[in-house]
Amino acid sequence: MTASIVFLSDFGYRNEWVGVCHAVIDRIAPGTPVVDLSHGIPPLDVRGGALLLADCLAFLRDDAIALAVVEPSVGRDRDVAMRTGDGRLLVAPDNGILHPTWKALGGVTEAVSITAERYTLRPVSPSFHARDVLAPAAAHLAAGVSIAELGEQIDPATLNTLALPEPSVERGRIECEVLDLNRFGNVQLNVRESHLAEAGLDRSERVSVKAISGGVIASRVSTYADVETDGWGVMVDARGWVTVIRANPGNAAAGLGVGSGDLVWLTDGV
Amino acid sequence: MTASIVFLSDFGYRNEWVGVCHAVIDRIAPGTPVVDLSHGIPPLDVRGGALLLADCLAFLRDDAIALAVVEPSVGRDRDVAMRTGDGRLLVAPDNGILHPTWKALGGVTEAVSITAERYTLRPVSPSFHARDVLAPAAAHLAAGVSIAELGEQIDPATLNTLALPEPSVERGRIECEVLDLNRFGNVQLNVRESHLAEAGLDRSERVSVKAISGGVIASRVSTYADVETDGWGVMVDARGWVTVIRANPGNAAAGLGVGSGDLVWLTDGV
Amino acid sequence: MTASIVFLSDFGYRNEWVGVCHAVIDRIAPGTPVVDLSHGIPPLDVRGGALLLADCLAFLRDDAIALAVVEPSVGRDRDVAMRTGDGRLLVAPDNGILHPTWKALGGVTEAVSITAERYTLRPVSPSFHARDVLAPAAAHLAAGVSIAELGEQIDPATLNTLALPEPSVERGRIECEVLDLNRFGNVQLNVRESHLAEAGLDRSERVSVKAISGGVIASRVSTYADVETDGWGVMVDARGWVTVIRANPGNAAAGLGVGSGDLVWLTDGV
Repeated sequence: MTASIVFLSDFGYRNEWVGVCHAVIDRIAPGTPVVDLSHGIPPLDVRGGALLLADCLAFLRDDAIALAVVEPSVGRDRDVAMRTGDGRLLVAPDNGILHPTWKALGGVTEAVSITAERYTLRPVSPSFHARDVLAPAAAHLAAGVSIAELGEQIDPATLNTLALPEPSVERGRIECEVLDLNRFGNVQLNVRESHLAEAGLDRSERVSVKAISGGVIASRVSTYADVETDGWGVMVDARGWVTVIRANPGNAAAGLGVGSGDLVWLTDGV
Repeated sequence: MTASIVFLSDFGYRNEWVGVCHAVIDRIAPGTPVVDLSHGIPPLDVRGGALLLADCLAFLRDDAIALAVVEPSVGRDRDVAMRTGDGRLLVAPDNGILHPTWKALGGVTEAVSITAERYTLRPVSPSFHARDVLAPAAAHLAAGVSIAELGEQIDPATLNTLALPEPSVERGRIECEVLDLNRFGNVQLNVRESHLAEAGLDRSERVSVKAISGGVIASRVSTYADVETDGWGVMVDARGWVTVIRANPGNAAAGLGVGSGDLVWLTDGV
Repeated sequence: MTASIVFLSDFGYRNEWVGVCHAVIDRIAPGTPVVDLSHGIPPLDVRGGALLLADCLAFLRDDAIALAVVEPSVGRDRDVAMRTGDGRLLVAPDNGILHPTWKALGGVTEAVSITAERYTLRPVSPSFHARDVLAPAAAHLAAGVSIAELGEQIDPATLNTLALPEPSVERGRIECEVLDLNRFGNVQLNVRESHLAEAGLDRSERVSVKAISGGVIASRVSTYADVETDGWGVMVDARGWVTVIRANPGNAAAGLGVGSGDLVWLTDGV
C-alpha cells in the first residue's frame, strides 16, 4: 500500500488551485490517494490551518504525508519538508503552519529546504509554490524519494514557529477569542475543557457568554440536540474546543455579532 | 476490486467534516475509493438527502456502500447499518434518510445498531458521529467486516421512516411544493411526470406556474436550450422531477420569489 | 497503471452533478483515478473552461483523459471524443471548449460523435449529457475502449472552434478585458507577458490600470508579497496571464469595480 497525502489549504474550490495540485501529484506519483482534509480554511489564516492539522492527527493514517498550504508570503517563505520524532513526513511553507503538529509528534528530527531542481517544476511560479514545489515534494516523498534528496538540510531550530493566542484564565472568568465560525455559525473559542476546569466553570450548568457586541446565557450541553428551542448552548466540539451554539437552525455568530479574532468573556451564568 | 463508498451529507466544504471522514476511511480501509455524491444538501434537510440518494441509485456501482449523513439530532439518533433486499449495504443515522432507498431496493433484510467498541473511534464525540461511528462502520464494511459484527441486531420494523410530501393532484390542477433550488436557481417540485399525466397536464404546451409570491406561464420543454429568450420553461429534470426553469442565465427561484418548501400550483397555461 | 480522468466543469458543488458523474465512472471503470481540475468555472463560461484546460496541460499526466463540461446548449450540441496529434484523449460537448487544447496539442487526428448505445446510459436525459454520455465515454476510454467504438466518425474540420478575445495592443497602451476574478478578487486580464513587451510596457515599474469604473497605479511585481501595504500590483499569474492584485487581504476586483468581460486599459504608470 502506497502512502497517502493529506492536503489542506485556504484555496477554496472557486479556482483550479486544488485541482492542479492533484494533477501534479497524479503525474508524479500515479495512484497515490489524496485526502483533502479541508480547503476551506479562511484565506491567509495560517493559525487556522495549523490548528486544524494538529487537531486531526489522531484520524490520519500513520504513513499519511501532510501537505499544508496557507501562505500569505508565497515566494518569500522557504519551502520545507521534515520528519517528526514519531516518523511522520510534513511539507509546507516555513511560516509556522506545521508548528503545533510537530510539537505534538515529538519535534523535528530532519528538515530540508526544498530546492532540488529535479524534484520541482521549472520554471517555479513565484506566486504558486504549492503547484511547483510543495505538491511535487509531497508526491516524490509518496513515491519513495527521501527527504534528504529534496534539498539542503536545515537546522530544525531555524524553522519558524507560531504564537497561538492563549486565553486568560482566572477564578470564575475566562477572557478568550473566537478561533473560527463554521458552516452553521457555531463560535469556536480558543478554550479547552481544561481551561473551564481551571476557572472553576466546568460544573456550571449555565455559562454567561459576553462579547463587545452582545451577550447571552448558555446552557452547558454535550451536543446540538440538547439545546432548548430558541436557546443557546456551550459545548466542547469534536476537535476539543469550547464552542457557543444555538438551537438548530440558529446562527450563534450572527446572534452574538462576533467574527474570527473577536474577544469573548465566559463567566458563571447562574 | 474493493467495494467503494458513496458518501453524501449536508457538511459543505467550509470545514473539515468531509475531509476528516475521508481520512478515517483511508486509515481503516486504505485504498477504498470514496465517491462524494454531494455534500451540498441544504443544512439539516434529511428529506433532501433521502431523495438524492434514492434518485441516484441507478448510477452507483452495485457493490458501493452508501454512507448518508444529515443529522439534526446527532448524538440522539441510533447509528445503523443495514442490508437491503437486493444486497446493498447502507450506513446512516436512524432518522429516515435511508427510507426511500431501502423501499426502492427490496426492503431491509438485516440491520444493526452500530455499537461495537472495536469498530468505532473512542471516545465517540457526541456531536460528530459521522467521524467516529458512521464513516468507520462504512470503512469496516468495505474492508470485509460483516454487518452483524458492527453491533446489536435490530428489528428492521423499528427503523424510522420518512414522510415525503405528496402533491395534491386533481383534474387540471396540481398543488405541490418546492423540493430544492439548484446552482442555477431552477425550481424542483415534488411532482413526477406521472402526476402531470394524472392531472391531464402532460400534453399542455404551456403550464401556468403560480406561487404566493407571483406566477408565470411556462412552455413545456425538454432541456434548457429549448426555452425562448427571456422565457420560462417546465421540464422533467435528470432526476425525474418536474422543474421550473428560465432561459440562461435567468434564475427561476428568484423570479418566482420561492424557496424550499413553498407551495406552487400548476394548471394548464393556454 | 490505469489512465486517469481529469474532469472540469461549471457544476459547482451545491448539487450532485459532479458526484453522480464520479459514481458513473466508478461503476463503468472501477479504480480509475479522477482528478477534479475545477468545478468552479463561472456558470456557462465556455471560454473560461477552455482556457483553464489549455493552461493546465503541462501539469497533467500524459495519459490523462480530459473530460470538460460547460454546456449552455446541453441537448443540442453533439457530444464528441477525439485524439490529438500528440495522442491525448479528450471528451466534451462540441462547443469549442476543447479548441485551445487541441490547438496546443497538434490538432485533432481522430474524432467521433458519441452515439453508440452500448457506451451511453439509456435513456439519455436531455438536460444531463455529462452523466449519461460524456462521463460514460471518458470511463470507457479509461477502461480501454477505442474512440472509434464510441460512435460515428466525424471530420475534425467540422468541430466547433472558439473565438478568444485578443487584446488590442499599440505602443504604450493595451486595451484588454477581464477574463476572470479569483477567490481573492485578483483581476485576470486577457494579456500575456508578450503583449506587455509588444506595447513596450514590460519594463515599466508602474502600470496605470483604468476601467470605466475607476483606475489605479500599480507596481510591477512578481508575487503577492511584493505589493506594498495598501498598494496595488500587476503581475503575471501562475497560468501566464497579466493580473491586477492588491496587498493582502485586499480585493482588486471590488476596488476597481470590475467583473468578468469588462474593458481595462493598461498604460505606463510613471
